[in-house]
Amino acid sequence: MWPPASPRAPSKTDPGPPRPSHRPIPPRKFIVQKQTTEIPTPLAPIGEPAESAPGAGRSARGAGRLGGPVLPSRSVLRPLGTAEIAITGGFWAEKQELNARVILAHCEKWMERVGWTANFDRAADGTVAESHAGIEFVDSEVYKLLEGMAWELGRMPDPALERRYHALVARVAAAQEPDGYLHTSFGRPGQPARFSNLEWGHELYCFGHLIQAAVARLRTGHDDALPAVARRLADHVWDVFGPGGRVAVCGHPEIEPALAELARATGEPRYLELARLFVERRGTGTLGPIAYGAEYFQDDTPVRDATVLRGHAVRALYLSAGAVDVAVETDDAELRAAVEAQWEATVARRTYVTGGMGSHHLDEAFGTDFELPPDRAYAETCAGIASNMLSWRLLLQSGDPRYAELIERTLLNTVLVSPREDGRAFYYTNTLQQREEGVEPDEFEVTDRALSSLRAPWFWVSCCPTNVARTLASVQLSFATASETGVQLHQYGSYAIDTVLGDGRRVQLDVRSGYPFDGEVTVEVGGETAVEFALTLRVPSWARGAATLRDRGVPVAVDGDTVTIERRFTPGETVVLSLPMEPRVTRPHPRIDAVRGQVAIERGPLVLCVESPDLPHGLDTEHVEIDLSVPPRASANGAVVTLRGRADDQPASLLPYGDPVPAPRTAPFEAALVPYFSWANRGPSTMRVWIPA
Amino acid sequence: MWPPASPRAPSKTDPGPPRPSHRPIPPRKFIVQKQTTEIPTPLAPIGEPAESAPGAGRSARGAGRLGGPVLPSRSVLRPLGTAEIAITGGFWAEKQELNARVILAHCEKWMERVGWTANFDRAADGTVAESHAGIEFVDSEVYKLLEGMAWELGRMPDPALERRYHALVARVAAAQEPDGYLHTSFGRPGQPARFSNLEWGHELYCFGHLIQAAVARLRTGHDDALPAVARRLADHVWDVFGPGGRVAVCGHPEIEPALAELARATGEPRYLELARLFVERRGTGTLGPIAYGAEYFQDDTPVRDATVLRGHAVRALYLSAGAVDVAVETDDAELRAAVEAQWEATVARRTYVTGGMGSHHLDEAFGTDFELPPDRAYAETCAGIASNMLSWRLLLQSGDPRYAELIERTLLNTVLVSPREDGRAFYYTNTLQQREEGVEPDEFEVTDRALSSLRAPWFWVSCCPTNVARTLASVQLSFATASETGVQLHQYGSYAIDTVLGDGRRVQLDVRSGYPFDGEVTVEVGGETAVEFALTLRVPSWARGAATLRDRGVPVAVDGDTVTIERRFTPGETVVLSLPMEPRVTRPHPRIDAVRGQVAIERGPLVLCVESPDLPHGLDTEHVEIDLSVPPRASANGAVVTLRGRADDQPASLLPYGDPVPAPRTAPFEAALVPYFSWANRGPSTMRVWIPA
Repeated sequence: MWPPASPRAPSKTDPGPPRPSHRPIPPRKFIVQKQTTEIPTPLAPIGEPAESAPGAGRSARGAGRLGGPVLPSRSVLRPLGTAEIAITGGFWAEKQELNARVILAHCEKWMERVGWTANFDRAADGTVAESHAGIEFVDSEVYKLLEGMAWELGRMPDPALERRYHALVARVAAAQEPDGYLHTSFGRPGQPARFSNLEWGHELYCFGHLIQAAVARLRTGHDDALPAVARRLADHVWDVFGPGGRVAVCGHPEIEPALAELARATGEPRYLELARLFVERRGTGTLGPIAYGAEYFQDDTPVRDATVLRGHAVRALYLSAGAVDVAVETDDAELRAAVEAQWEATVARRTYVTGGMGSHHLDEAFGTDFELPPDRAYAETCAGIASNMLSWRLLLQSGDPRYAELIERTLLNTVLVSPREDGRAFYYTNTLQQREEGVEPDEFEVTDRALSSLRAPWFWVSCCPTNVARTLASVQLSFATASETGVQLHQYGSYAIDTVLGDGRRVQLDVRSGYPFDGEVTVEVGGETAVEFALTLRVPSWARGAATLRDRGVPVAVDGDTVTIERRFTPGETVVLSLPMEPRVTRPHPRIDAVRGQVAIERGPLVLCVESPDLPHGLDTEHVEIDLSVPPRASANGAVVTLRGRADDQPASLLPYGDPVPAPRTAPFEAALVPYFSWANRGPSTMRVWIPA
Repeated sequence: MWPPASPRAPSKTDPGPPRPSHRPIPPRKFIVQKQTTEIPTPLAPIGEPAESAPGAGRSARGAGRLGGPVLPSRSVLRPLGTAEIAITGGFWAEKQELNARVILAHCEKWMERVGWTANFDRAADGTVAESHAGIEFVDSEVYKLLEGMAWELGRMPDPALERRYHALVARVAAAQEPDGYLHTSFGRPGQPARFSNLEWGHELYCFGHLIQAAVARLRTGHDDALPAVARRLADHVWDVFGPGGRVAVCGHPEIEPALAELARATGEPRYLELARLFVERRGTGTLGPIAYGAEYFQDDTPVRDATVLRGHAVRALYLSAGAVDVAVETDDAELRAAVEAQWEATVARRTYVTGGMGSHHLDEAFGTDFELPPDRAYAETCAGIASNMLSWRLLLQSGDPRYAELIERTLLNTVLVSPREDGRAFYYTNTLQQREEGVEPDEFEVTDRALSSLRAPWFWVSCCPTNVARTLASVQLSFATASETGVQLHQYGSYAIDTVLGDGRRVQLDVRSGYPFDGEVTVEVGGETAVEFALTLRVPSWARGAATLRDRGVPVAVDGDTVTIERRFTPGETVVLSLPMEPRVTRPHPRIDAVRGQVAIERGPLVLCVESPDLPHGLDTEHVEIDLSVPPRASANGAVVTLRGRADDQPASLLPYGDPVPAPRTAPFEAALVPYFSWANRGPSTMRVWIPA
């Protein structure tokens, strides 16, 4: 019932009370309530002297505004807040409902079970040094859960969740020390000293997640307990690491984007300066030696000098996100251009077809160019989320739809594969090829992060489940943006928009689609009066040349990567985008040795895979080849292809090398390919995205 | 000058003083001196009651006999000792001389520099708990160095080396505690308790290497200080872990083959029983949980129930070697058959074309079947050595030349790639594809084991250099064997044999060959009188159908994997085996996804590779394809092939996936392929074994 606290009377087109439905969220129209706090105003950089308008500084800087996780002082596209966009049904409603009903509670329950939440209680009562549970950075998981709860509460008030949220915040706040420091693993007698192990200690990393959780609270209209904790903590970091303080950085970037956003949300320029210092200090051997080399935590090259992302993928991506924030707020075009070039090189050479990043299990790191083994893909869930954090920032600044395209690919094919259908188990790494059936982890077992071939309920390093939770709770905020003169739709599904453009024009839209399975996207104009604006829809690169658009039923030419209708829209009018949903045969770049001679099948935005439950009895995915002489055809959710089974060759020699031995093949048969994100929901299986052709 | 202490007068065919030569070891004939200690006798199992011959037990059991690292009580083939076989020149003489002159001293110097040797002094004077240098298992590196020194001294007396050896042994011995325990990292106040961390502590692993070093001393005729230390240590292990003691095993197998060999060398049945207990206990969850799963240290399945090697490669292979020893000495046909089947499955599905084993950097482990990425090959040097330890044991038991064939492949293409040409730097992992030029590690820098693309002088975990040292010092002992009625040549090069068959017939042979670069192997019969015996030569599988043999100039049919000439041989007669040395095109099994569509070029026993210094200026190995329409032709050491360069494709889409974009190709050009073992000796380079075809 979103948003239940609406003071606005139902609009004319409001269908009234929700219709009974099996859907967790009934389809409704125009349910978006315009934010009441303030109308978007032209933004000034943080901390810029507001000489011409004394007293208006905070609002002029964007501080206190509602919005999403990212709210730059200046951008080409303006992100929408929870009051401006909401999912109304379909695919994404199911995902958000799963998150609300299951995943958040799952994370909360597990962190109680393994004692990570209780660490805060023990920090408060002085016993944590003897009894700390978990590795040194488990505080961050509690913070990501709090962030997810905050976004969920912003999206959909829920008194029970709100009580849980406040109770958890109170336990965290009680652990804050008088000088603002807050970490359960450091600084007490019997613990390592504060900031004594910046390479591995993850202290500032944890602070970053606390700050992001606080920003979520501020952006959803509540300047309450956690933002107060975050301010005190950030002030403490300023005292220790600010100008004149210790010239150091954290081994794991994360505080950089967090501080930049806290600066944006509070108008406090010191937080931005701190973010800038952390970005600028890195890459000059600031950190000590580490087994995997300085590249591992991006201390090998300054951000503005690097040409590609490298080292630990999540670290590299969080850092890049923070660098964009700093570049934007300090008007540092060189820094922004450097990150854009790194993004481009990384996407072109170091990214899986699923959008996944990271080829090395050893150090959770990027490989070299074109080193993209499907069976050893690390493609960490958190790296997918971090990649989208970066792409989103670059999209807002440039309006370039390529960023939105990568977000879509990564969201659907790397982030969504992590949670099991029931929301009670997760992938930490996301392989593109499972050669042997695994064993389902026990429901009460804590798993090593990449050990199981099936999703696990919890991990000793459990960054991914809580990252999924905060991402799903706020996912709608990445679907569309506004500008001075129009609205841009980047992702498709069923959602409603109610926003006000720069000059005060109010735009209400109802977007309806069976996407990502169906390619038709209907945008219906809502509101009560006609309004002139520009409606921009993204055209994915795979749809180019085949996408069609009908504006009020009239075909409109579609070329390029967006299509814009700019006119006076009357309520009830529709614009319908049709994207081709025929399966596509995707071939790899010839330098990706690991999948040479194989193809992937994609359908719309979804990467498909062949999974053993869809093969004839006794055949696994290691023993199939695809027959491309029969074109793949679409099925409801995936595709049907023609395969052949291949016997396991008898070795011609002692080793599996020598003259080829033609192996017997079965007659061709049809098999279903399923969306990659849905694999491994039917018990142990084998799977492959890339199929020998 | 080997062996300088020979009491034997030069034989008739002795060419007299060595000819001046640039070779470190001048080519000589018949320099092998028959061992003087004892004539091989029929062997009885260790500890079998010697009722019929009281007092003869020790010798009847094989105890006290000279020989190599492995000397089973029963075997089809009898290994030769340092007194029976010696390298006389050529390829292997250079390697052994490099080891004698450089590698042993390099290891010794580095262990002094990093304080690993001094740990023993500090253990003796009671200060080691505060000042222990290195990780917890660095004792083992000192022991492997001692083993290498012992074999070197057995091969070639050297008073200076002998002084260094005794000095080092004295420092080790001084650290032994009164109850026999000897480890510098455990058991003292301020250190973890003895055997308190069997999963990771490597205590018994270190003991195993000490014991193997002691066996090397016993087998070269010296029952002196180190064997005494080893006996006391093994007795201590018996007290703690023997029957009625603690039911446990070490996280890292190694003591199993060591104890079995100490039993063989001393006749002490308790040591064999201890080895048996350690083999049998493993695989039943004996060890505690570990991040990588029980498979990592083979505690998932009992050895006799497993079907393939899995988990950490070196652990799996050392354990298997010990299991064969136990199976042989306890007449456990089931256990031996289980290991043989595991060897076969592992070689057929989990082994690189170089013989390398281990596909995972994360846990230094085997991958699943056919998971053999060339660019992430771990193929640890020590795993290659361990693989040969296993294959050698199986060869001795079965006489099956397939084991010798894998030894050859692994020795030449995995073990020999480790040391740099100058012997002062090493590979720990042995990639089959280097995509980017690396940076040469500093001469005085200690490196992480798999970080550099170039060989490093020393590693924090430095198991490989000392393992190379002990292997090269004793490598000739794996070249040939004897039986009751004949001599078997398994590996080719230039070496001399002087041995006595079971019935007392003395066989002297001079083997001369430019192998592995040249395919002609001349075996000249030595001695002073004619002798009847069976001379068996291995015919590698790649030579089958093309190998020729001339016995006294007369062609002899060659089919099968060995050829045997059994007749009365007169001194001076020759048998000449000619193996084809034309380059071969080797294709991978279709299930090895990572190298689909690529070929390797082999020549004789050598795997070749393309390395960037051999390409036209500006071209690296990531941008070449091979043109197989022009057959590769042999060069002096490798081959010449026809390649084309390929421009780096412009991406057709954002990501490196989509419709193929034909990239411009250069005109075909000829390029040299070099032996894989010799790559990266010309500064930073790129390299690949598998070349797109």
